[in-house]
Amino acid sequence: MGFSYKLIAKCSKTQARVGIWHTPHGIVETPRFMPVGTVGTIKGLTPSQVATTGAQMILANTYHLHLQPGESIVEKAGGLHSFMGWNGPILTDSGGFQVFSLSELRDIKETGVTFRSPRDGRIIELTPERSIQIQNKLGADVIMAFDECPPANASRSDVTKATERTYRWLERCIEAHQRPQDQALFPIVQGGIYLDLRSKAAKDLSVLDLPGYAIGGVSVGEAPELIHQIVAHTAPLLPPHKPRYLMGVGTYREMARAIASGIDLFDCVIPTRFGRHGTAMVQGERWNLKNARFKEDFTPLDAKCPCYTCQTFTRAYLNHLIKSREMLGYILLSLHNITELVRFTMKIREAIEGDRFVDEFGHWLNDHSSNHDTI
Amino acid sequence: MGFSYKLIAKCSKTQARVGIWHTPHGIVETPRFMPVGTVGTIKGLTPSQVATTGAQMILANTYHLHLQPGESIVEKAGGLHSFMGWNGPILTDSGGFQVFSLSELRDIKETGVTFRSPRDGRIIELTPERSIQIQNKLGADVIMAFDECPPANASRSDVTKATERTYRWLERCIEAHQRPQDQALFPIVQGGIYLDLRSKAAKDLSVLDLPGYAIGGVSVGEAPELIHQIVAHTAPLLPPHKPRYLMGVGTYREMARAIASGIDLFDCVIPTRFGRHGTAMVQGERWNLKNARFKEDFTPLDAKCPCYTCQTFTRAYLNHLIKSREMLGYILLSLHNITELVRFTMKIREAIEGDRFVDEFGHWLNDHSSNHDTI
Ligand SMILES: [Zn+2]
Ligand SMILES: [Zn+2]
Repeated sequence: MGFSYKLIAKCSKTQARVGIWHTPHGIVETPRFMPVGTVGTIKGLTPSQVATTGAQMILANTYHLHLQPGESIVEKAGGLHSFMGWNGPILTDSGGFQVFSLSELRDIKETGVTFRSPRDGRIIELTPERSIQIQNKLGADVIMAFDECPPANASRSDVTKATERTYRWLERCIEAHQRPQDQALFPIVQGGIYLDLRSKAAKDLSVLDLPGYAIGGVSVGEAPELIHQIVAHTAPLLPPHKPRYLMGVGTYREMARAIASGIDLFDCVIPTRFGRHGTAMVQGERWNLKNARFKEDFTPLDAKCPCYTCQTFTRAYLNHLIKSREMLGYILLSLHNITELVRFTMKIREAIEGDRFVDEFGHWLNDHSSNHDTI
Repeated sequence: MGFSYKLIAKCSKTQARVGIWHTPHGIVETPRFMPVGTVGTIKGLTPSQVATTGAQMILANTYHLHLQPGESIVEKAGGLHSFMGWNGPILTDSGGFQVFSLSELRDIKETGVTFRSPRDGRIIELTPERSIQIQNKLGADVIMAFDECPPANASRSDVTKATERTYRWLERCIEAHQRPQDQALFPIVQGGIYLDLRSKAAKDLSVLDLPGYAIGGVSVGEAPELIHQIVAHTAPLLPPHKPRYLMGVGTYREMARAIASGIDLFDCVIPTRFGRHGTAMVQGERWNLKNARFKEDFTPLDAKCPCYTCQTFTRAYLNHLIKSREMLGYILLSLHNITELVRFTMKIREAIEGDRFVDEFGHWLNDHSSNHDTI
């Protein structure tokens, strides 16, 4: 079975939309948050536990999987679904984002990027063709084009060049792609903070009629208002009958606003990263569970949350686990945090279906304060 | 509901026995291995996951729970079962073993032991009365008498004194115990490697007709043959209509032999400790999953094991997780290792019921090699 995106409902006041997206490994009911399983594991959670969060599609990182265990092992295992025991949809990124973050360790040319492996020091070349070849072997349902992601402070001239190169690299990705029938290749709209560059990129890519579209190069250090501007400007320019994925964004406010601009999919590492630091995301707030105020608090983390953590344990127990540096503390918080963000997008979905999105989520849409920057 | 031990079957060739032991939080089908949840969590596993291992009763450590979060918090939470979300039977130790292991940090007198908390440096006094008071607040189904546990190299004279003091401390424990109706107090047979001292202690304690009996002070550094000798000598001297617990032993061979001497219950931290070090216990062997031989091994860890790890993942994936230092690797191996040891005792139970124990487990009973010391 291939891919098809079906539009179910639209908000009458914003660009927000509800869809059902069919993939070879099942449906994704959009909008939906996707948790990140970097090396083929959502940190600390079994696939069974991840399934209980409501997550339908998960991410894995091509860069990390290439370094360890290597795509050949994953291919021999029958692909990433079989290797990691997750039978739902999976998306792999191109590896570009991690390589471009290496700064001192890499060299960018028209052919691609060479870098020194931080693992064993060997020189690795990542090109559009190589990225697609690796992703074809990993076998995720969605694979991402290899793009050039300039830093947030890049000049207009540098961003222009990177955006043009990203287009040329996309053509090479499409050419190299060996499994278009069961792996959807998403292009990435770049263009930095320059809205006219974003427009041009969005239009150029739309013409290609690919199975889905991503917006990249946001949430790389720019102010939240800029994220909002870029997304509000770019998303409506993308084909309406294809899923739209905003890369690397997973905070309450930014997701609510991006959905209002017509975004369908999100990913972010914060729910598990926060979990590992003893932080719970509860109804729009962040709580440090180590805090003494939880020591004798025998209520659930969030009485309204259906997750195993909230249904089974008290804040006092979580406080005890985090203070004792017990693995179970990190596990239970990660489980809750992912559930929380997935549910946030599920609740928005329900609100859009009933055309109550602006009524119910207006406090997020209208929140322009900077003290919630990353909430 | 109180406690009762019912003898179901006996081996015709050894002292091995099968029983059903009723506790206020459910039955324990003996012989059975009990996993250890030091601070009120089996490291890395949720109570739901622990339940899938076949474990019926679990342990927690009074010393650790006293230091963090403190027994008052646990009591306010409604007791340890409620606090940690485990509704099956629980056993707490007395705290003595950990305090006696502090060596430089403690001072032993007839009243009890004073020590400096390794956590915050404050001076803590642990007496028989205090240990029972803490355990009464923790609320486990079985609580252990506060005993003096001399080191493996102690002289006969020192062991004699410690054994006599252990008896006097037991009398104080019985006197201090406030919840005999729903908490069974187990005395501990000491006596070191001196079989006549073990005999005297076993007989003195048997007279008291307590709800269960433990053998302590083994597996503290002495040779495996000595463990076997001590247990074979001591266990048959204990009341036949009460459960018998061999403290701190959880290796295949030593459990098989102890069962042959009439032991019913075991505990040991190795399955989770091994798990955290990337080691799997598979059919009597120890495998380091980091080993390159597993890199492309796409078979389950143990095809005959019913655990989630073995039913879902390959050795290649476990190798990848351990090499990547991913939490999930430690979790999955801990889950398997506990299942493995619990199942080992369950298989022995079944064999005893069919009077096939010596036929099926003779290789463990007759293994006198020293290269399996801790297997
Ligand atoms: Zn929750
Ligand atoms: Zn297993």
